[in-house]
Amino acid sequence: MSIGEDRPIRVVQYGLGPIGQGAAKLILEKAKAGQLELVGAIDIDPQKANKTLGSLVNAPSDVIISPDAEDVLAETQPDVVVHTTSSFMPQVEQQLLQCIRHGASIVSSTEELPYPFARHPEITQRLDLYAKERGVTILGTGVNPGYAMDVLALVATGVCTRVRSVTVNRRVDAGLRRQPLQNKVGAGITVDEFRERQEKGGFGHIGLVESLRLVMHGLGWPIEGFTENLEPVISERKVKTPYLTVQPGRVAGIKHTAQALRNGNVAVSLDLRMYVGADQPEDRVIVEGDPPINLVVEGGIFGDTATVAALVNAIPQVLNASPGLRTVTDLPVPRCFLPEV
Amino acid sequence: MSIGEDRPIRVVQYGLGPIGQGAAKLILEKAKAGQLELVGAIDIDPQKANKTLGSLVNAPSDVIISPDAEDVLAETQPDVVVHTTSSFMPQVEQQLLQCIRHGASIVSSTEELPYPFARHPEITQRLDLYAKERGVTILGTGVNPGYAMDVLALVATGVCTRVRSVTVNRRVDAGLRRQPLQNKVGAGITVDEFRERQEKGGFGHIGLVESLRLVMHGLGWPIEGFTENLEPVISERKVKTPYLTVQPGRVAGIKHTAQALRNGNVAVSLDLRMYVGADQPEDRVIVEGDPPINLVVEGGIFGDTATVAALVNAIPQVLNASPGLRTVTDLPVPRCFLPEV
Repeated sequence: MSIGEDRPIRVVQYGLGPIGQGAAKLILEKAKAGQLELVGAIDIDPQKANKTLGSLVNAPSDVIISPDAEDVLAETQPDVVVHTTSSFMPQVEQQLLQCIRHGASIVSSTEELPYPFARHPEITQRLDLYAKERGVTILGTGVNPGYAMDVLALVATGVCTRVRSVTVNRRVDAGLRRQPLQNKVGAGITVDEFRERQEKGGFGHIGLVESLRLVMHGLGWPIEGFTENLEPVISERKVKTPYLTVQPGRVAGIKHTAQALRNGNVAVSLDLRMYVGADQPEDRVIVEGDPPINLVVEGGIFGDTATVAALVNAIPQVLNASPGLRTVTDLPVPRCFLPEV
Repeated sequence: MSIGEDRPIRVVQYGLGPIGQGAAKLILEKAKAGQLELVGAIDIDPQKANKTLGSLVNAPSDVIISPDAEDVLAETQPDVVVHTTSSFMPQVEQQLLQCIRHGASIVSSTEELPYPFARHPEITQRLDLYAKERGVTILGTGVNPGYAMDVLALVATGVCTRVRSVTVNRRVDAGLRRQPLQNKVGAGITVDEFRERQEKGGFGHIGLVESLRLVMHGLGWPIEGFTENLEPVISERKVKTPYLTVQPGRVAGIKHTAQALRNGNVAVSLDLRMYVGADQPEDRVIVEGDPPINLVVEGGIFGDTATVAALVNAIPQVLNASPGLRTVTDLPVPRCFLPEV
């Protein structure tokens, strides 16, 4: 029996923040095609528990949101869990192990998961071994990390005979994004406040180094060393968004860069700028190689929608992948799953 | 033992036209990294037979070019054959079966092979079954078909929640390409001569409909009907290339289009223009969807180098793929193999 053809793929949504709600709503819509079924929803927020999923995401669903993951997984026996709870591996390890124990494959937005081998080798090994033992697949993905600054960069090299270096520039107009993202990049704060936040840690885009490692890994290049840098983008003019106003001289957002070295030269260079009032949002991959490649997504890839898409589009891919902890470089060419909804 | 890690991947080059020579030369260069070895070379041209491969492609190789495929395959026992002999399936079936019989996986530039199921169902089935029986993988790829108008189009949809249509426009300045390609697109002939060639058949870009089918297949869309059209691009000015001159009013090249229908609407539309004097070469993918995607390779992908790259870059991928006749939609995200040579 083929899952998705002879019977629908059973999906549990684990985590119902903005991305999780978007994923749940999209899965409910795509379920109309008969190849997917949203069978359970988990969130620890008492404001959401015991409501129907339908009432939360404004789509037809009688699924009751439960704070008890164990209950939901045991009762619903999902094929795949779409997991959107936290950016960091240590915080999600137990959640992922629990899903694996119930025989579910996992697509997760955890930003450290797309390439976890270097930062969290022990957690990674535990997840990988347990997933192989239970015959399921774990994947971390999203638009960034998972696509814009890694998969797209690798794809650009696919028609090159030689590659000397890869540069990826992503420019995001944070003013068009949801409010939490505008706050996350520090829009409107002073430079001093920016530096304070920076010292506390956990500020900036999570997953940039993961993208760097994915590109190096995909090209078969060991990393000899890497640098990472976070700077404020200072607003030169007054910028208004639906949520806030940035005065000239205040922080508009972040410039977050990372570079990996190879034979003493910069092999992969990533430059992410997310700020309100960005003039020309775009995603650009520059391959110095033969032939040289200059690949651009004009206007950029709109992050909020794209992350939800990347997660849901990966569902059939993890079901067909070999068991264990996989990366997007192991999976087939990404594409839209059930494009008509 | 892992092929490519514990011992080099053994490769035979089958066919030594311009693309085959380019592939052989590239493999010889990449072999320096120790993961690849070019162990045999086949071509039926008496001018090439019994010469060393090194003398033909100007690279160090003592491999003797042989017209006898059976001999070469039996003696060298390759892991992979890079096959570049003909565009058409009926002409290559016996060659491919022979490679399979010797236990070799195949990466081929045969333009009908990237999606052969519709045009040649019986040949396809024979190849697929025999490859599965012998545990080897067959793949048809190249820059076009195989990348520019199919893989790139699918990748562009990977961050979309919905897709209504996909349009791919490829503009190639044939004046920068090798002479046979300039002749192939009819540069310099009259419109009457163009129509004559067209009536004889086999004129235009081979593989456009294969790309169309790959995109539809990748999106899970059955083709309800498709149209294909070939028109001359008329030169408005005098254009000189290193090989020929096109007078105003003469044919500069081809405009070859194909469209697939879905629910009565155009779902996938491909537009390929290859002509001398093309002003703005580029590859452009336009996804009407959520979010909309406008992906451009500025300056276009230079075809001659890129086809050679696509073939050689697929070598490790076919070795790791499951047996049978595969398409580029089954394989991992394309990327450069052994980027430093």
